[in-house]
Amino acid sequence: MTSLEVIALEGLPLIKAGDDLNGLIVSALGRNAIAPRVGDVVVVAQKIVSKAEGRMVDLATVEPSARARSLAAETDKDPRLVEVILSESVRVVRAARRGVLIVEHRLGFVMANAGVDQSNVAPSDGAHRVLLLPKDPDRSAEALRKGLTESTGVDLAVVINDSFGRPWRQGTMGVAIGAAGLPALIDLRGKPDLFGRTLEVSVVGFADEIAAAASLVMGQADEASPVVLIRGLRWSAPRSTAASLVRSASEDLFR
Amino acid sequence: MTSLEVIALEGLPLIKAGDDLNGLIVSALGRNAIAPRVGDVVVVAQKIVSKAEGRMVDLATVEPSARARSLAAETDKDPRLVEVILSESVRVVRAARRGVLIVEHRLGFVMANAGVDQSNVAPSDGAHRVLLLPKDPDRSAEALRKGLTESTGVDLAVVINDSFGRPWRQGTMGVAIGAAGLPALIDLRGKPDLFGRTLEVSVVGFADEIAAAASLVMGQADEASPVVLIRGLRWSAPRSTAASLVRSASEDLFR
Repeated sequence: MTSLEVIALEGLPLIKAGDDLNGLIVSALGRNAIAPRVGDVVVVAQKIVSKAEGRMVDLATVEPSARARSLAAETDKDPRLVEVILSESVRVVRAARRGVLIVEHRLGFVMANAGVDQSNVAPSDGAHRVLLLPKDPDRSAEALRKGLTESTGVDLAVVINDSFGRPWRQGTMGVAIGAAGLPALIDLRGKPDLFGRTLEVSVVGFADEIAAAASLVMGQADEASPVVLIRGLRWSAPRSTAASLVRSASEDLFR
Repeated sequence: MTSLEVIALEGLPLIKAGDDLNGLIVSALGRNAIAPRVGDVVVVAQKIVSKAEGRMVDLATVEPSARARSLAAETDKDPRLVEVILSESVRVVRAARRGVLIVEHRLGFVMANAGVDQSNVAPSDGAHRVLLLPKDPDRSAEALRKGLTESTGVDLAVVINDSFGRPWRQGTMGVAIGAAGLPALIDLRGKPDLFGRTLEVSVVGFADEIAAAASLVMGQADEASPVVLIRGLRWSAPRSTAASLVRSASEDLFR
């Protein structure tokens, strides 16, 4: 019987810049009495990866450009926030009233606000901090994968997930912005279906589905469980990173 | 510790028109030694719901309209298939060479080919059959929920899932086209984050994440596990159907 376990690790401390995520996750696995097994996938919330990497910007230090001011007026946003968003973006895809600013992030993700987040950032000293995506989430995932594999002695995979809104559908959904040690994308094209006909649509966003599954137990309003272990997945496709999940602008009909 | 089990049921027979899905799922639960518990979510692949409902069309019986012929030429598709797709759609969103035909399905889903599927449809008698989405997947989900709850004596929820492509990202991902007995959409707006600030983006596509999690174990190239049981989910939001996951055209920036 094929079955998965999706386990939210408890007791991870609040993460701050410079923290050793690898060590904290290994400790949390121990505290949760989980002995990692080959093929386990560790899903880590973007937010704590960004925090550990110190990807915070204090808006008080930001001087908005004329373009940021104009876009801020158009979207009812803080011009300094828009400046930060633009600094993380290569193009604006849609801008509209009531805070809508959908951009192409420098990593290719088409997403709201370039993933710049104002929630769950501790306002310890009155500063108005915002949190950016990790600089290179695939690289962060690979570093974590290597660290965890070395620390535990077991070959693990890592996915870094975030919640994205979608066109056409309400509600956010977990997606993968970083992946290491597994196929982020599985190409089944050419594989016969049950009756020998060739499958038509058969490229699966495997890491995105993993990200969504983890998202179900991470909780949305707190940081209680920003690390989730998924056990029982199997794959035979070659490894690929989350970058392979990004559709190129030239192949995209909606940009 | 919050954890989920995602269990693919084995041994379900190939489904054909008129089959009693409720009875077959109850039998499969028994064969898989699963005693349902309150709050278990049964995820059922769209394909077997459509088959049980007899949503098949033999292309030999279809007479393509002039519009279907023209769109078929534009997209390199079978004009009869395009006729079926159009009959399930309220508008064409994008059409392009190499088979791209993205429509707004009559239920509001923006999707490729209106979900009309040519794979895994048994070509038993030389007919060229295609499979449509269920007529009303939320209603199908509710009927199954009611049936399963009555048969098992336990309050269950049901999600009907399908694999959708996405703009901007490669690969398909499981999404919910029908839901009953749970909140398809969870609205956390107004809920404070960890530091008391109000969450900004906080409407979660809960049933879509459930659909994606199930999709991980359903397998893509065969019908081996079109029914998945997810155990361990908790929710407090009011129930809503998959229709609530559809963004209205007036709120949509990409249609």
